[in-house]
Amino acid sequence: MIIIMDQHASRENIDDVQKKLSELGFRTHPIFGEVKTVIGAIGDKRHLNTQEIYTLPGVENIVPIMKPYKLAGRELKQVPTVINVGDVQIGGNKVVVMAGPCAIENEKSYIDTAKKVKEAGAEILRGGAFKPRTSPYDFQGLEEDGLKIMAEARDITGLKLVTEVVDTRDVDLVASYADIIQIGARNMQNFRLLKEVGMHKKPVLLKRGLSAKIEEWLMAAEYIISEGNEDVILCERGIRTFETATRNTIDLSAIPVVKELSHLPIIVDPSHATGTWKYVSALSKGAIATGADGLIIEVHSDPNCALCDGPQSLRPSKFSQIMSELSHVANAVERTI
Amino acid sequence: MIIIMDQHASRENIDDVQKKLSELGFRTHPIFGEVKTVIGAIGDKRHLNTQEIYTLPGVENIVPIMKPYKLAGRELKQVPTVINVGDVQIGGNKVVVMAGPCAIENEKSYIDTAKKVKEAGAEILRGGAFKPRTSPYDFQGLEEDGLKIMAEARDITGLKLVTEVVDTRDVDLVASYADIIQIGARNMQNFRLLKEVGMHKKPVLLKRGLSAKIEEWLMAAEYIISEGNEDVILCERGIRTFETATRNTIDLSAIPVVKELSHLPIIVDPSHATGTWKYVSALSKGAIATGADGLIIEVHSDPNCALCDGPQSLRPSKFSQIMSELSHVANAVERTI
Amino acid sequence: MIIIMDQHASRENIDDVQKKLSELGFRTHPIFGEVKTVIGAIGDKRHLNTQEIYTLPGVENIVPIMKPYKLAGRELKQVPTVINVGDVQIGGNKVVVMAGPCAIENEKSYIDTAKKVKEAGAEILRGGAFKPRTSPYDFQGLEEDGLKIMAEARDITGLKLVTEVVDTRDVDLVASYADIIQIGARNMQNFRLLKEVGMHKKPVLLKRGLSAKIEEWLMAAEYIISEGNEDVILCERGIRTFETATRNTIDLSAIPVVKELSHLPIIVDPSHATGTWKYVSALSKGAIATGADGLIIEVHSDPNCALCDGPQSLRPSKFSQIMSELSHVANAVERTI
Amino acid sequence: MIIIMDQHASRENIDDVQKKLSELGFRTHPIFGEVKTVIGAIGDKRHLNTQEIYTLPGVENIVPIMKPYKLAGRELKQVPTVINVGDVQIGGNKVVVMAGPCAIENEKSYIDTAKKVKEAGAEILRGGAFKPRTSPYDFQGLEEDGLKIMAEARDITGLKLVTEVVDTRDVDLVASYADIIQIGARNMQNFRLLKEVGMHKKPVLLKRGLSAKIEEWLMAAEYIISEGNEDVILCERGIRTFETATRNTIDLSAIPVVKELSHLPIIVDPSHATGTWKYVSALSKGAIATGADGLIIEVHSDPNCALCDGPQSLRPSKFSQIMSELSHVANAVERTI
Repeated sequence: MIIIMDQHASRENIDDVQKKLSELGFRTHPIFGEVKTVIGAIGDKRHLNTQEIYTLPGVENIVPIMKPYKLAGRELKQVPTVINVGDVQIGGNKVVVMAGPCAIENEKSYIDTAKKVKEAGAEILRGGAFKPRTSPYDFQGLEEDGLKIMAEARDITGLKLVTEVVDTRDVDLVASYADIIQIGARNMQNFRLLKEVGMHKKPVLLKRGLSAKIEEWLMAAEYIISEGNEDVILCERGIRTFETATRNTIDLSAIPVVKELSHLPIIVDPSHATGTWKYVSALSKGAIATGADGLIIEVHSDPNCALCDGPQSLRPSKFSQIMSELSHVANAVERTI
Repeated sequence: MIIIMDQHASRENIDDVQKKLSELGFRTHPIFGEVKTVIGAIGDKRHLNTQEIYTLPGVENIVPIMKPYKLAGRELKQVPTVINVGDVQIGGNKVVVMAGPCAIENEKSYIDTAKKVKEAGAEILRGGAFKPRTSPYDFQGLEEDGLKIMAEARDITGLKLVTEVVDTRDVDLVASYADIIQIGARNMQNFRLLKEVGMHKKPVLLKRGLSAKIEEWLMAAEYIISEGNEDVILCERGIRTFETATRNTIDLSAIPVVKELSHLPIIVDPSHATGTWKYVSALSKGAIATGADGLIIEVHSDPNCALCDGPQSLRPSKFSQIMSELSHVANAVERTI
Repeated sequence: MIIIMDQHASRENIDDVQKKLSELGFRTHPIFGEVKTVIGAIGDKRHLNTQEIYTLPGVENIVPIMKPYKLAGRELKQVPTVINVGDVQIGGNKVVVMAGPCAIENEKSYIDTAKKVKEAGAEILRGGAFKPRTSPYDFQGLEEDGLKIMAEARDITGLKLVTEVVDTRDVDLVASYADIIQIGARNMQNFRLLKEVGMHKKPVLLKRGLSAKIEEWLMAAEYIISEGNEDVILCERGIRTFETATRNTIDLSAIPVVKELSHLPIIVDPSHATGTWKYVSALSKGAIATGADGLIIEVHSDPNCALCDGPQSLRPSKFSQIMSELSHVANAVERTI
Repeated sequence: MIIIMDQHASRENIDDVQKKLSELGFRTHPIFGEVKTVIGAIGDKRHLNTQEIYTLPGVENIVPIMKPYKLAGRELKQVPTVINVGDVQIGGNKVVVMAGPCAIENEKSYIDTAKKVKEAGAEILRGGAFKPRTSPYDFQGLEEDGLKIMAEARDITGLKLVTEVVDTRDVDLVASYADIIQIGARNMQNFRLLKEVGMHKKPVLLKRGLSAKIEEWLMAAEYIISEGNEDVILCERGIRTFETATRNTIDLSAIPVVKELSHLPIIVDPSHATGTWKYVSALSKGAIATGADGLIIEVHSDPNCALCDGPQSLRPSKFSQIMSELSHVANAVERTI
């Protein structure tokens, strides 16, 4: 790292910083500029508490040189990670589509939707049994009963299951049903929950927080991997900005950025990002062309009756049509779907 | 609520929406404009799943008329809530100051800081035993050992304690030590945790999420209150914007907005909002003059050695000086401190 | 529009609002809810100063029903606008590519780049003669000498020219050289400049402001069109958010939103949006797949020597390779390039 | 500045960067870390086009050490600037209040308001003759007729005048009437306009752009000062964020940040920042307590009839009451008003 000293820092201040750095195991290299002095410190920053330096007299700023994440980054692992969910691969050449309703509402409608998304070409079935809702008065999910319905849908269709966990106390339960455990956007920095899913062997779908920088998102992945679970799938789902025309602002530039910084696969959720089914088709194509490894799309056999997120759900017939269009786009970037 | 129909909506679409609304228990009043039709729906929206309406053909938008929160709002309770923490009142005429280090690091330094903030006039002692940290490699807190040190500091100084809980599994433990349970910014929409603290009788300090709208923040308070715990203290601690000169952007306009919409007290955390001790004095004065009911300030007897957030901690001597300046500002707005 | 009255509004307040609305030529329809009253007002809002209503006692909020733009919107003109720039069409089936360096630096290098982008398939040549720069100490452009070099490049290559104007006093000059006049992001709400280009007959490329909502962007287009110039091309170039991994956050969801709200063509500038040439290829593909009508890409024969925006410029060889990849993506969404 | 080399940069890459830096007049100091190399470059960055370095092979990032502004910064000028507007001083111990309606609508109402704000203690009169409006259909100002009315109000009341200029072609005209020339938020990066007002001798009120970082704002001031006009007053007026409860988010932390980085005075516009008169009182107090050198407040003798921004205007009686409250706050921070 580089320590930038204030222009008014004394020679003594500079010496003190160097001394402290030496104590902490760094080799130091001061550069005396015309106005300011900077000090290069060589060593591994990640075990250092930089505040010990930051608050020394005369220190203006500290510039880290190494990335704060290690296991999630490209610096140690160059090869892209491919995650196996049974016979489905995420992060390989084939673009993976996850689809299904936002919440599981009842057995009949869920199984019906599951069959239809399977038929249209989806490989993974989504559905929420534990729902984080902005209002305490909104439907909060069927909990284990929902998980049972999901398992039944898996038995019938052969689709793999992805579903969210929202409480550390439920991780064992959810892991016993799910093929992929989802961490929602609001829990991206629920570090205890991250650690808990890190101790299981199930792949984790880690949604980006509404106001999470890509670096923080990768640090959240680092939490999971550092507990021993390397199978993290990143999911861009829109960030919060000043624009209100869409529910959130989908950040497709996150795809090439993540590909450059990390070896982890990244998928996109155009349904939650936009909040409107009308934009899902266009942005699904855009996501694949930009390089996404997969999509997670809301599909509901009757969006008018959806207990949550109806407006962003596609009907199965529309979803089926989009899937065939997506295959052309995937082919155009030398992938399949 | 008001349903705005698309300009191409047919008469049949309009009839269907009215029929659906009637089934849901609403009285309806259509207004036929020159280009578009709008439908007024009279009844209580909070038990309605508006998506059932939203996805009907021809519906362009739905405009809620009533606020989504009820217990946290001014509509039902006009009188400001005053929360008693032992003999300390929050939300009354006296501005309450909470102070202390970010994390509890060791007994000696914590007790030392506690004595000094008490002497300077603080009434509540802060300190983190469970720390949510962006990096898994950073200090995560002393856990129960930290809580014990806090309790000891309370015994010695008489200060009340505020400390954060980050996991539903720890709520009983934290509640058994703390006088006020803190929900951190990253957990503002950890709804399970909100419900859990809602089931205890201890006052809750609810920090605003980094990207939380004020309405969402009040909905988070609603989660707590709807479980039976009415003692919620809101805490503005900066929101995430494009500006990088400060760690977050302190939103002091939240103070009059919250005072208008809600009966709950609101305090401000200038230390986390700015990330720099140099700005704490100015913004503490600003917060009180704007109408804050209290402050929560980081103070550490040796910021150079702070295991977290050192740069934003004040030394006790500086804190003491600020406290005396703050009393002038409090008096200027007819309050005490 | 709908006027929402405060829950404490008196009957007299309601009557006064209705009276005022009547005076302003509206027909009014009050709806008396259980807690609040709302008043529907039928008439053309765009000639009304809504503040006259807003500040009447008891008024809580006003909800507009009609869009504030008329000429830029789909409500009056359903058919997409196709803009002819000589024999190049923007907004038709063919995706149009504009390319070239950020600034014109010297004749030789500019003409050289022009020839190469022509060869690679671009149809329009970009280049800045008047540069809006954050620092007064940075290169500000060659001004008319730059325009002359552009004209020479047009003579040699047959490419059409797009270049920016930054001052009302230069509009005639720029219009005398350019085939398309560009309004930069920082001038999107320079209303005098919008009016000035609206009085010319040259097509206008209107970049989205860094913090402009789509509605405001369409209002800026409305300024131009309302002066008589209907040929406005919208250009998404990234918005300002909290994310720092890219220079701005490219908002590809703006494409389907604009297509829904407006008849105007929309192109994308992945170079300025990301600030890094490495991400241009991926996001160019993403933009076309999402439905963009064109791209504007920075290409420089020697990015190391670019006087501005070097890091985001592609070398001609890389640009040429991307162009061939883009044709596959265009075909996948049934367009050509 | 510091050049950070990519971890895969070759020894040859590093040599090339050093060679290039030497050619550009820098002395270089490489530091070879365990994974990456960084190169310190000593010299004056402001005359360098850093892109020439940025795009060299192996360069990952460049970290500037010196601030990009010089004349606006504290590095060269430590003493706070006090600006004289006749006998009114801005930036001194006395907090200056500017007040008046948003737009000048007619002589009678303007003069009436002027008299009342004078009586309440304002020293500078605001009013817009040229209005930048989001919609082309909104009232755009009385132009020179408005300026004449302002001059008349000055003659009658003795108040100094502040008014906005929106077009380079109008600067001479506006300067011939105004005592302070205002640059609005939307024109903060209209660099030609900045240069034009920099060539006049009238003080400039420079509003912060809706999405301007403080550094960019100071660079805009640098544009004005570098043309010879040192009398720049910065004005915080809210930034654009995701929060919609207020029109913009007032950033009071900008006050101590600006005070640290710059010698220029800074005032606050609570009316435009919040968009609602109800919040003006609280935030005016907050601004002064935080250290603002002044306020600019909208006051209108009949807000119900205001042709623009009615909802954020105070009635004179309310303004008068606030002024007396503000004097207590000013005194509490050892200033007068």
